[in-house]
Amino acid sequence: MEQIKVNASKNYIITLDSGFESFKTQVLPLITDNNVAIITDSNVAPLYLDKVKELLVGKRVFSYILPAGEENKNAENYIKIVNFLAESGLNRKSTVIGLGGGVVGDISAFSASTFMRGIKYIAVPTTLLSMVDSSVGGKTGIDLDCGKNLLGTFFQPDAVYINVETLKTLPEREMKSGMGEIMKYAFIDPRITTSDVLSKNFNLIIAKSLKIKRDIVERDEKESGERMLLNFGHTIGHAIEKLYNYKVSHGECVLKGMNYAIKLSNKFGYVNDVDMEFIIDYLNTSGVDLSVPFSKEEIVSAMKSDKKASGDSVNFVFASGLFKLVIRKVKFSEILENL
Amino acid sequence: MEQIKVNASKNYIITLDSGFESFKTQVLPLITDNNVAIITDSNVAPLYLDKVKELLVGKRVFSYILPAGEENKNAENYIKIVNFLAESGLNRKSTVIGLGGGVVGDISAFSASTFMRGIKYIAVPTTLLSMVDSSVGGKTGIDLDCGKNLLGTFFQPDAVYINVETLKTLPEREMKSGMGEIMKYAFIDPRITTSDVLSKNFNLIIAKSLKIKRDIVERDEKESGERMLLNFGHTIGHAIEKLYNYKVSHGECVLKGMNYAIKLSNKFGYVNDVDMEFIIDYLNTSGVDLSVPFSKEEIVSAMKSDKKASGDSVNFVFASGLFKLVIRKVKFSEILENL
Repeated sequence: MEQIKVNASKNYIITLDSGFESFKTQVLPLITDNNVAIITDSNVAPLYLDKVKELLVGKRVFSYILPAGEENKNAENYIKIVNFLAESGLNRKSTVIGLGGGVVGDISAFSASTFMRGIKYIAVPTTLLSMVDSSVGGKTGIDLDCGKNLLGTFFQPDAVYINVETLKTLPEREMKSGMGEIMKYAFIDPRITTSDVLSKNFNLIIAKSLKIKRDIVERDEKESGERMLLNFGHTIGHAIEKLYNYKVSHGECVLKGMNYAIKLSNKFGYVNDVDMEFIIDYLNTSGVDLSVPFSKEEIVSAMKSDKKASGDSVNFVFASGLFKLVIRKVKFSEILENL
Repeated sequence: MEQIKVNASKNYIITLDSGFESFKTQVLPLITDNNVAIITDSNVAPLYLDKVKELLVGKRVFSYILPAGEENKNAENYIKIVNFLAESGLNRKSTVIGLGGGVVGDISAFSASTFMRGIKYIAVPTTLLSMVDSSVGGKTGIDLDCGKNLLGTFFQPDAVYINVETLKTLPEREMKSGMGEIMKYAFIDPRITTSDVLSKNFNLIIAKSLKIKRDIVERDEKESGERMLLNFGHTIGHAIEKLYNYKVSHGECVLKGMNYAIKLSNKFGYVNDVDMEFIIDYLNTSGVDLSVPFSKEEIVSAMKSDKKASGDSVNFVFASGLFKLVIRKVKFSEILENL
């Protein structure tokens, strides 16, 4: 068992373990009210819902099973979930547990953050991506028709519990998605080495990724500066994800987005040809096909609805080499010219 | 013109004026992005929408007109509003203006607080109740089928602009509603005197009410202690409002709730018969009929879905006299016995 402390606007502890055993000693004591709602999805429920219910000794447990898939992280399901919390009789002191991947985490945390103006929330991520990405940072959200994560809050959990063993049931595609995000961490911070990434020692690389993100988030919780660095590969990545209609995983789209971002960094003079080729080789070790079947016009058009866009420009994260990132406001027209 | 500073988790200024003139110097400079969305309702739009649009010199102004009425402070309209903000192309730096009464204020502030995880919000309250109540405190919210304000956030505005002249177009029923809340302030704090209340000098009593609420909220923004005092009359008041299906105004229901709360305070031994009669006489100066056509069983049952309820009990605000309040956790069964 390893524990990582996060000191954000709320302090909490991430517990990493191989199994659910330490849940009872590390998390259960935080659940003071009798009523607990578990939000999960149709993929995760058959695998882990009963197990987590068993851990909640002596509690009245309500569970809500969302249909699996990014397209369900929408307003309609959000309203269904908060109505479910109300109908189950949860009160201001009750707890919501989000059990699943990023979709479950984002929508259940957003629900907990707005139900009765915010009740307790415990994240139990079961995908590699959600373990390394949404466990830290307190971003909650749902998608609107106009774009991803357009509705949400900044809201820290009361605890995060990661059972690394749950990765054993994770589909290959989802493992790749998580690796995409981990490769971003390895790119922006030297604490994860390429050999860590290749080692497949998940306890190690999850812990290292979390510490990198934690350190950045603690310094800039509301994303007014440094935290924007975490968006490396994401501005174009999100646009690609949208163009694929969310049928290609987030992590893969981030890798494709990093590929574009490196090439743009080269065009804008931030990185030389040799370093660019080295970095693209690194991205290729993921085994993800970095090509994209969309035109540059389509990509730039999709970027314009990004939350980071403002008017005709966007704060874009360029790289001048490994571990060297630069944020610069650029016009969409400049991106289009250089893509 | 008078200005009241509020130092909460965000600092902002409430401007009180007789007219909209000072809006341009006090509020407009805070609106930095070009895109502004005004959320208002079908009662207020014909009276003040064009006027406020005119004040927003040089901005791209989008306006959304909600049908008037408490029943419209619901999830469906919230989702419509945030989709409207997205479709209008608002970004993270854009501003939402809530122009209207409590319904408009609560739903538009909730929308602003969750759109892109929170954008700028300026409140322009046009009812007496929203001027004295929701201008300070940062509570946003919408109703769910199960109860009032079950969804919301704590979110401070960037500015509040009160044009007292807008009260001239306010229906009598709404004036009474605001007076109910003002009488609560006068009851809990000696800074508003009965002669202030009777004077109908609204500049004065609005400013005094705001300062009383401001002082309490600054000490306890998240309502973990002292702020609960502001709920005097509200626990039963909300239940009555619900039983009336929101056809009787909030302030009138609060006065009816205060009447019950005083009688309960007497039954529980907090206030003697003479003081109780004095206080009930005071409540009667409002001209509001304090009687209620519901049984005590109905009232207690409706109280159980209140956010302040937890299990079989609720934190109830008793009075032991003017300006002397006591919060005690009581069982619903005790309330039922003594009502």
